[in-house]
Amino acid sequence: MAEITYLLENGEKVVVSAGIGNNLLEVARGANVAIDAPCSGNGACGKCRVRLVEGAIDAPRTSHISDEEYAEGWRLSCACKIEDDRPITVLVPDIASAYQSRIRTADLSDEREIKIFTDIQDHMNEVGLGISHRFDQVTFTMDEPTLDDTMPDNERFERAFLAAVGCDAVELSFHALRRLAAVMREKDFAVTAIYEKQAHRYLVYDVFPAGTDIKICALAIDIGTTTVTGALSDLTTGEILSRASAGNGQIRYGADVINRIIEQTKEGGIAKLQKAIIDETLIPLIDMMVRDAGIEKGQIVRMSVASNTTMNHLFVGASANSLRMEPYIPTFFRCPPVKAGNLRLPVNPLADLFIAPNIGSYVGGDITAGTMASMVWNKEEFSLFIDLGTNGEIVFGNNEFLMSCACSAGPAFEGGDISCGMRATDGAIEAISIDKESMEPTVRIVGKDGQKPVGICGSGIIDVISELFRCGIIDSKGKFVREGARVRRDAHDMGRYVLFESSESETGREICINEVDIESFIRAKGAIFSAIDTMLQTLDMTPEVLEHIYIAGGIGSGIDIENAIRIGMLPDVDREKYAYIGNSSLAGSYAISLSDAAYEKVLDIASNMTYLELSTYPGYMDHFVAACFLPHTDASLFPSVQV
Amino acid sequence: MAEITYLLENGEKVVVSAGIGNNLLEVARGANVAIDAPCSGNGACGKCRVRLVEGAIDAPRTSHISDEEYAEGWRLSCACKIEDDRPITVLVPDIASAYQSRIRTADLSDEREIKIFTDIQDHMNEVGLGISHRFDQVTFTMDEPTLDDTMPDNERFERAFLAAVGCDAVELSFHALRRLAAVMREKDFAVTAIYEKQAHRYLVYDVFPAGTDIKICALAIDIGTTTVTGALSDLTTGEILSRASAGNGQIRYGADVINRIIEQTKEGGIAKLQKAIIDETLIPLIDMMVRDAGIEKGQIVRMSVASNTTMNHLFVGASANSLRMEPYIPTFFRCPPVKAGNLRLPVNPLADLFIAPNIGSYVGGDITAGTMASMVWNKEEFSLFIDLGTNGEIVFGNNEFLMSCACSAGPAFEGGDISCGMRATDGAIEAISIDKESMEPTVRIVGKDGQKPVGICGSGIIDVISELFRCGIIDSKGKFVREGARVRRDAHDMGRYVLFESSESETGREICINEVDIESFIRAKGAIFSAIDTMLQTLDMTPEVLEHIYIAGGIGSGIDIENAIRIGMLPDVDREKYAYIGNSSLAGSYAISLSDAAYEKVLDIASNMTYLELSTYPGYMDHFVAACFLPHTDASLFPSVQV
Repeated sequence: MAEITYLLENGEKVVVSAGIGNNLLEVARGANVAIDAPCSGNGACGKCRVRLVEGAIDAPRTSHISDEEYAEGWRLSCACKIEDDRPITVLVPDIASAYQSRIRTADLSDEREIKIFTDIQDHMNEVGLGISHRFDQVTFTMDEPTLDDTMPDNERFERAFLAAVGCDAVELSFHALRRLAAVMREKDFAVTAIYEKQAHRYLVYDVFPAGTDIKICALAIDIGTTTVTGALSDLTTGEILSRASAGNGQIRYGADVINRIIEQTKEGGIAKLQKAIIDETLIPLIDMMVRDAGIEKGQIVRMSVASNTTMNHLFVGASANSLRMEPYIPTFFRCPPVKAGNLRLPVNPLADLFIAPNIGSYVGGDITAGTMASMVWNKEEFSLFIDLGTNGEIVFGNNEFLMSCACSAGPAFEGGDISCGMRATDGAIEAISIDKESMEPTVRIVGKDGQKPVGICGSGIIDVISELFRCGIIDSKGKFVREGARVRRDAHDMGRYVLFESSESETGREICINEVDIESFIRAKGAIFSAIDTMLQTLDMTPEVLEHIYIAGGIGSGIDIENAIRIGMLPDVDREKYAYIGNSSLAGSYAISLSDAAYEKVLDIASNMTYLELSTYPGYMDHFVAACFLPHTDASLFPSVQV
Repeated sequence: MAEITYLLENGEKVVVSAGIGNNLLEVARGANVAIDAPCSGNGACGKCRVRLVEGAIDAPRTSHISDEEYAEGWRLSCACKIEDDRPITVLVPDIASAYQSRIRTADLSDEREIKIFTDIQDHMNEVGLGISHRFDQVTFTMDEPTLDDTMPDNERFERAFLAAVGCDAVELSFHALRRLAAVMREKDFAVTAIYEKQAHRYLVYDVFPAGTDIKICALAIDIGTTTVTGALSDLTTGEILSRASAGNGQIRYGADVINRIIEQTKEGGIAKLQKAIIDETLIPLIDMMVRDAGIEKGQIVRMSVASNTTMNHLFVGASANSLRMEPYIPTFFRCPPVKAGNLRLPVNPLADLFIAPNIGSYVGGDITAGTMASMVWNKEEFSLFIDLGTNGEIVFGNNEFLMSCACSAGPAFEGGDISCGMRATDGAIEAISIDKESMEPTVRIVGKDGQKPVGICGSGIIDVISELFRCGIIDSKGKFVREGARVRRDAHDMGRYVLFESSESETGREICINEVDIESFIRAKGAIFSAIDTMLQTLDMTPEVLEHIYIAGGIGSGIDIENAIRIGMLPDVDREKYAYIGNSSLAGSYAISLSDAAYEKVLDIASNMTYLELSTYPGYMDHFVAACFLPHTDASLFPSVQV
């Protein structure tokens, strides 16, 4: 056994004993030290860098570590094997934990934070799918028990409830029963009860001492592969009481769903992946939102979750293994009824958990919920809905039909697979322009004034590639063809464009984009464009038929449509047809959390949506290869952006 | 902080750091070291003895520790305060853990172990309350999915289920859903499903690969204040598959219910007491029974619990605080519907938990279930049902009415409050006779041949007091009046009768009964007799009306009715009217676990049973005082046992 010390940048120190033969990444995972490893530790992504500050460890130098960095002690933790019992101390840089960020609550006084909710509430109200449920509350006072009136608390409560509400039958939930004795006695036997009118009786979800302001609440969750977001709202008005986000704790088992499914098939894997999303992500996130909103968790009586098929399988604890193997069969499209208490979530244990339905292994509830939020299903004209999360999914159609497909774009739009990539959180470079003459960049960074740059998020990557191409610094294959102060090359002649020197960044590392990054991103954008192209061709249509194109997902509100078209990612049509609609999965989840009618609608959308399997579709591969250029091998598809 | 080491007799060693000012008992509790402390640590019971083997600790010598013992290092752990940071090592003797024993499974080839179950099954069948439920199982094979048939697993399962069973609607439980993918693929899509026919649809509780022998099972639990017992049976035949018992883990918070309720009112107390019964007692007990029976926990689809009112409140996590304060109001008599999953129990999470109803704060589900098992409710002639557990409860009546009362007998019948008392487990002296001439005892000890004595259980205490009285060694007040080799006196002239010298016992401690023990026991038996006497008098009846007297409870099958009458504990009527029916609470729980009809019957019995509050009944106190003699101040009540 060797003693391993992890020094975190926030000042924390984690010391563990580790057996010989383990690697530093595995040991860190076991000790709950979050080191980013999107590739799940196979040496491919280069993100799991740590810096050796005490002790020696034998690890090969990989292409992700320069000679200078190697000399300074930088290693990929996944490649560091513990070979003897000497103590080792390593520094875990914040770039790792930046990708998997801490919980952030939104400032609700900022209108942009609540716009997606007010928008969808307006849309839903217009089509008769607004708030619909059967919850209500009542406040009443009971007679105090005496030696001559020794009725047990629950019978006393039920008798008074029936009289106050004027109904025939009532049942006390187990959760409410446990709280009853203390609650009744806190305000001299005056209580407020939250109940649901059910078919045969009224069911009491929770009880509170009278006199407190009790809001009946709904919780909407979007479980993204990378980021988890939540919205807590007043079930009576729809008002947002808290909005928060956090990194998906599963990320340490892989940035993409495939690596996580592989991890899940190992001994104890299902429980491990479920623990990562529930115990390490959702429970702290919801606890934070409950505090932020100033409510008690028992007040949350409805809950919804929108997520891709793998995420909702891992969330409920079902095996996702057959999702990745032919014939790609999920356990469920529509999950049977689940209560929040089944999953230990810190809300009323009786709360129904509405899980947005999947329509296939690679088109899940995030897309059905997002499609509902986009309102493409309610228009006569044709629309396209594109969700750029980890991977990309596309829905095309109108009020008569809906067709969907998924493409293996990977996590590039959320900053994954890019050496300096990150999510659109503090320190992310979200917008970039480059002066054609001087080749000097101008950037916009997420965060407060004075925020130093940490990395580049999806919208920034689109910008920098588009600008490098526009300025003739890279060619249509993404190779550097112009020299300059910011264009550098390594020992293998690989070019890169430096946005910030190591002395200027938050992390002390240079922020740049290199040819490998550009190649990754070109494949990602090529996957998106060729998917749109193929889907329209199957219907004998061209992009001209599109009246609306809704962009959603984690790429960030900073997305510059002009730049995205210039690199050949999106069709070259009138820019006014484009709209960025933010996190449509969360917006759809929010609508479901408030409304039985909205849940029925998303089930209806799912059962009417067809799925186009691109991987087996003849011609898709040719389209994809053709799209892996800037902007495309067929430049005539992008007439308005000729360089 | 001081380092405290507890050496357990099983060889385990527990080392903890403890703050100055804590006492050794509290520190042990925090570290899950089980030291018996029936009085909850106030110095009264003298059971929490430990022996100092390293370090020094200042503790007063109490009356429970002799001078020799004090010199050897014996201390009451509740009186040992940690005063500085020197390390301390203490030996925790097994007498402490003997009282709170480990899990014991019964040998089912021994007919005596299953007699209570076959008896009640016969009774229940006779009156039409035999096995009744709506569970069944089915085995079928599904088509394997292909690329052309990509229906999700749950829809595939449901379609095949509907065809195999021939019903209209089916729902898959969340528990079954999570297991589905792996189970379907284990035996080429051939599965066995356990389901319940419900009003609007068939509900699938669990799924298993076809080809395994699947029994649908029921679990019956009796939660006694001191001992928890369980019976796992085949829901189709009622056959017992495993029977086991364990000490109630709450005992370290007090031997009686009052001390536990007080503990429960402290910060975090409800969770702590619930953890002691669920996590530390029931989960290991049920896990053991599941292994013993060779089943999977998902096969247990019905579960019942019989227990006193405090125990069922602490079990479900409801506050028991108002049970101990005027006007003594429980949260419930009849608990609302609860699923086993609500309480994290290792059975099918969907299993209904049938909790036998209470009828008051001091007459609980153990008595209503036991009354059902005694069959007194089904006879024209008058019967008495006496449950001698921790405290005593009495039911009198016939098929027309039932009256109950509870008396504060304390834990003496289960060995509590008696210096060498213990439960009727290995090493317990369960029967004693004394030669009138020589004053030498003859004993019977529970356990295998050669088992050395550990202590005296309830039936042994009755015997020894009765025999001491019959031989003229003690007088009717319980004081020693005859001298002899086995009669000894301490410095305060307190007499005791020595059954085994310290060199002869398992624990190295003398086994004796002293005047304080006898006084405690006389109060306990006086409480029982005066309760019977009072209850009959309220109805203008005398013991002569009794046709059957059923004795139940933890006092043990060794109870000698003649001796119990001789000391004035039970009415002096024809001995043939008496029957020991064992653990009637568990027997009633077993009947409920198998049968909806039996559960309805116990609800019916509870709603028809009246409760006599003895403490406020005029004359009860006089009856009690008169009964605190051997056999009674009015010896004419015991004509057949005149000395």
